[in-house]
Amino acid sequence: MTQPYKKVALIGLGLIASSMFWAMKRGSVAETVSGYARSPESRETARRIGLCDEVCESAAEAVKDADLIVLAVPVGAMGAVAKEIEPHLKAGATVTDVGSVKETVIEAVGPHIPDGVHFVPAHPMAGTEHSGPESGFATLFDNRWCLIVPAEGSEDEAVVRLESYWQELGANTERMEVAHHDLVCAVVSHVPHLIAYTMVGVADDLRRVSDQEVIKFSAAGFRDFTRIAASDPTMWRDVFLTNKQATIEILGRFTEELMALQRAIRTGDGEQLHAYFTHTRAIRRGILDAGQDTDAPDFGRAKVDR
Amino acid sequence: MTQPYKKVALIGLGLIASSMFWAMKRGSVAETVSGYARSPESRETARRIGLCDEVCESAAEAVKDADLIVLAVPVGAMGAVAKEIEPHLKAGATVTDVGSVKETVIEAVGPHIPDGVHFVPAHPMAGTEHSGPESGFATLFDNRWCLIVPAEGSEDEAVVRLESYWQELGANTERMEVAHHDLVCAVVSHVPHLIAYTMVGVADDLRRVSDQEVIKFSAAGFRDFTRIAASDPTMWRDVFLTNKQATIEILGRFTEELMALQRAIRTGDGEQLHAYFTHTRAIRRGILDAGQDTDAPDFGRAKVDR
Repeated sequence: MTQPYKKVALIGLGLIASSMFWAMKRGSVAETVSGYARSPESRETARRIGLCDEVCESAAEAVKDADLIVLAVPVGAMGAVAKEIEPHLKAGATVTDVGSVKETVIEAVGPHIPDGVHFVPAHPMAGTEHSGPESGFATLFDNRWCLIVPAEGSEDEAVVRLESYWQELGANTERMEVAHHDLVCAVVSHVPHLIAYTMVGVADDLRRVSDQEVIKFSAAGFRDFTRIAASDPTMWRDVFLTNKQATIEILGRFTEELMALQRAIRTGDGEQLHAYFTHTRAIRRGILDAGQDTDAPDFGRAKVDR
Repeated sequence: MTQPYKKVALIGLGLIASSMFWAMKRGSVAETVSGYARSPESRETARRIGLCDEVCESAAEAVKDADLIVLAVPVGAMGAVAKEIEPHLKAGATVTDVGSVKETVIEAVGPHIPDGVHFVPAHPMAGTEHSGPESGFATLFDNRWCLIVPAEGSEDEAVVRLESYWQELGANTERMEVAHHDLVCAVVSHVPHLIAYTMVGVADDLRRVSDQEVIKFSAAGFRDFTRIAASDPTMWRDVFLTNKQATIEILGRFTEELMALQRAIRTGDGEQLHAYFTHTRAIRRGILDAGQDTDAPDFGRAKVDR
């Protein structure tokens, strides 16, 4: 057991921060964990369930003497929080974040990092469709990836220390360049979420198909979309607004491909459809081989022995 | 235990037919089950694993003396199979199918139903991403919906009998009108599948993002898409080609909504995005309340106690 940081401050107490707390407790990864959430209800909930050793009434108070400060608020709120804590940061401390977008966060937070304080952006790629201080659990990061995205001027020693911290929480770490991070996440996460939101919205809007029918027959592929589309609205609004360029680029690619398939359907080009659908099976195979999912048949049904 | 049909013939031995066989055995729902698959390999596999009481060398042989004939082949092959078995059907028998599209199947199969034979189309809304004779299991239909879609001239007694048969297999049944069926399925199943195929194709095609990255970071929402996009290519090709009108209509709605959201992203309209994402949460709630999914946080992670 190593303790990369003695005192850790969690700013924001949602799914990610609360899971980080339980993971730190599980492995005794830090000595003290302070926390702050903007809403009094969240602070109250945190105190009730024992989330954080100390729940503070301000971000400034929470970061006092902290060796690691984790900004775990929606991406759009990072800059304001950084500004608020700026005068209270200890020399030698490291500020990190858990935002799903990196370029905008670095632009917003970077200017508020005082000399003598390190800034190492990061992005744990783990989550569920739930949110809030009660949604966290210790194993959320186990065997998941945490991307470490050094900003200009991130010192190597501070980067390595943050990597070892995330490894103590159960994650695998990988360093990635800022713009590449935002593009990869647009592909594997941001655009899939937007598409799921859209499809669920279409179903809801279609008056000839009743809500009841959509719900009853959701097992036919639609259910996974509704799960994704139940994710936190504020977090996702901020993701799309701040990763605008990559999102719109990938959306353009998506629409282009979809139009090509739509045309194949309209013209009855079965060969093109079959070739496309066969090709996509290969990627699935890769994901199974990499241990990122199981081959158990799902669509909501556990396989049961005959 | 009731036996609506004494002898059942399964034409096609894929996921659905093999699951029907195991469900029939589980509940002694029929006395004898014969089966036929076009490929010699599938017939060989079926014999090896004990799928069907008798695996026949032709569809004509399999339907001999059968009280219920289940057409469980891709939608595009239904007409040819119906034509082949037409001279061999017993008077008073019922022909049904399990296709995901109903209007086209009725058009293709209907003309081959002789006088004195009943035709009652149906569509069990259950499946996994696996296919082939070894993918079936007895519980696939438990608590899932089987839509019964009477064709013009389906006699009520024959419809009721097929409903009780599907209930014996574990399913809930609901009658639905042909065109409405095809529209509902386009919304909850066909278009979501096409979208998933497309998104996986985009990811694969994007050379700046490596396959390795797509695979490694798939837990971030993308993994569910790859599972859906691993479904049987032939089945899905046929679904899109035969449910062309409803698919293209829903795709049009989808693209319209997606463009509106893309515009909100481009113009930075956070309020519109937030309102949209909040609204879609309600549908998810309905699905949970209806018992069609659990509220366990997923994204690939089982919740573990702290």
